[in-house]
Amino acid sequence: MANDALAEICRKHPDHFPAFIASLPMNNVEASVQEADRAVKHLGARGVQVFTNVAGEPLSAMRVRPVFQRMAAHDLAVWVHPMRTAQFSDYASEKESQNEIWFSFGWPYETTACMTRLIYSGLLDELPTLKIVSHHMGGMIPYFSGKIKLGFRQIFFGGPERNPSAEDAKLKKPPVDYYKMLYADTALGEVAPTRCGHAFFGTDKCLFATDAPFDSEQGRGLMRNTIAAVNALEISQVEKDAIFSGNAKKLLQL
Amino acid sequence: MANDALAEICRKHPDHFPAFIASLPMNNVEASVQEADRAVKHLGARGVQVFTNVAGEPLSAMRVRPVFQRMAAHDLAVWVHPMRTAQFSDYASEKESQNEIWFSFGWPYETTACMTRLIYSGLLDELPTLKIVSHHMGGMIPYFSGKIKLGFRQIFFGGPERNPSAEDAKLKKPPVDYYKMLYADTALGEVAPTRCGHAFFGTDKCLFATDAPFDSEQGRGLMRNTIAAVNALEISQVEKDAIFSGNAKKLLQL
Repeated sequence: MANDALAEICRKHPDHFPAFIASLPMNNVEASVQEADRAVKHLGARGVQVFTNVAGEPLSAMRVRPVFQRMAAHDLAVWVHPMRTAQFSDYASEKESQNEIWFSFGWPYETTACMTRLIYSGLLDELPTLKIVSHHMGGMIPYFSGKIKLGFRQIFFGGPERNPSAEDAKLKKPPVDYYKMLYADTALGEVAPTRCGHAFFGTDKCLFATDAPFDSEQGRGLMRNTIAAVNALEISQVEKDAIFSGNAKKLLQL
Repeated sequence: MANDALAEICRKHPDHFPAFIASLPMNNVEASVQEADRAVKHLGARGVQVFTNVAGEPLSAMRVRPVFQRMAAHDLAVWVHPMRTAQFSDYASEKESQNEIWFSFGWPYETTACMTRLIYSGLLDELPTLKIVSHHMGGMIPYFSGKIKLGFRQIFFGGPERNPSAEDAKLKKPPVDYYKMLYADTALGEVAPTRCGHAFFGTDKCLFATDAPFDSEQGRGLMRNTIAAVNALEISQVEKDAIFSGNAKKLLQL
């Protein structure tokens, strides 16, 4: 029903909404694959969005794999949005996360954990053309790229180019190379972080996006700040245009 | 015993180790305060280090407050190091964190949660001169400064300058202003993230540090990369000198 309604809005207002991204009933993988097909072939969806976990189970679970395989076959992207609630406590002594930590930092942590699990599950070796869009400019990935390049067991049992955990996972490349295969949206809204994220992913993998309408100005503040942050990047106008719209047109096959 | 041994090393090799930071038995707050006094007054410790939680309990617990009060009275800093193990699972369906996520991203998340809890507990209103050093250049704080500036309830029930959760906590300033009161070490080892962290905290709050010896080269790689990252900052040599040593000399009262 939601996807039918989104398709209808796009048909009615094509100048405003050139395309939509379908939602999937991930509690039922078979139905999700069928709905992905229906949304792409019959409704004109140009990708799908899923959440970082399926009722508490990681997206890297092999039973979920057909959804990614189908989207790779369609050559359309999978957008991944974080989801956790205050019930995800930050301390062993407590039942709930306090002070909105589950939201402000827990959501980007979720995105990062999800991307890491997908990568270590071999997803991007199995489907090297799969396009995954990570929210909030890759979550924690860019700021902690140094930690990605130096794993825990690597410190004690590996070498500068030898990561035992990556070897156990039978990854074909250094882990950081897979993180760089991800797309990242610009929904950070600050200049210095956007520079940091762009330095990691590069212009080709950055897509303009905001969290609008989720601020206290119906999204106007987020749009204003995020446009300013992209414009502040020390890159050419051609590259900025790619981030603002060109990359999305390619990814959405518009 | 550990603090006695560190003091002894400093006495024997003053050119190499000008000072040390004491460890505290945080399972016993009264003993921690006594040991902080002993270490500072009798052993020459120039600060203390604690972990982000006390056996699973947040550092913001009021019963731990005397440790911070005493260090504020000494006008010496509290270094906070993250700690969690793989037992801190990332998914409701699992018992353990996989793929070293608990380390690579869980540790900086811990630091961020800890700083947030300390701030919302009113610690920096109670002790505005208290100096706290956050590891890994503030954890997630700089990259997600935009999310700090826009709380969850603020989106729906607040305004551009009104954060209901900060009001409930009776904070006197906007939350982001407290995060900027923290010190941050440079233990990221990458150029773009170091720029992002420096942009948030400013030169005065940045202290050179690495995770040495914890790489697969006994720390040489971390030292090389972190020195290069600080040198790549677009600031004067005077400011770089402050980050490399001047700020630490002030903070440690050397």
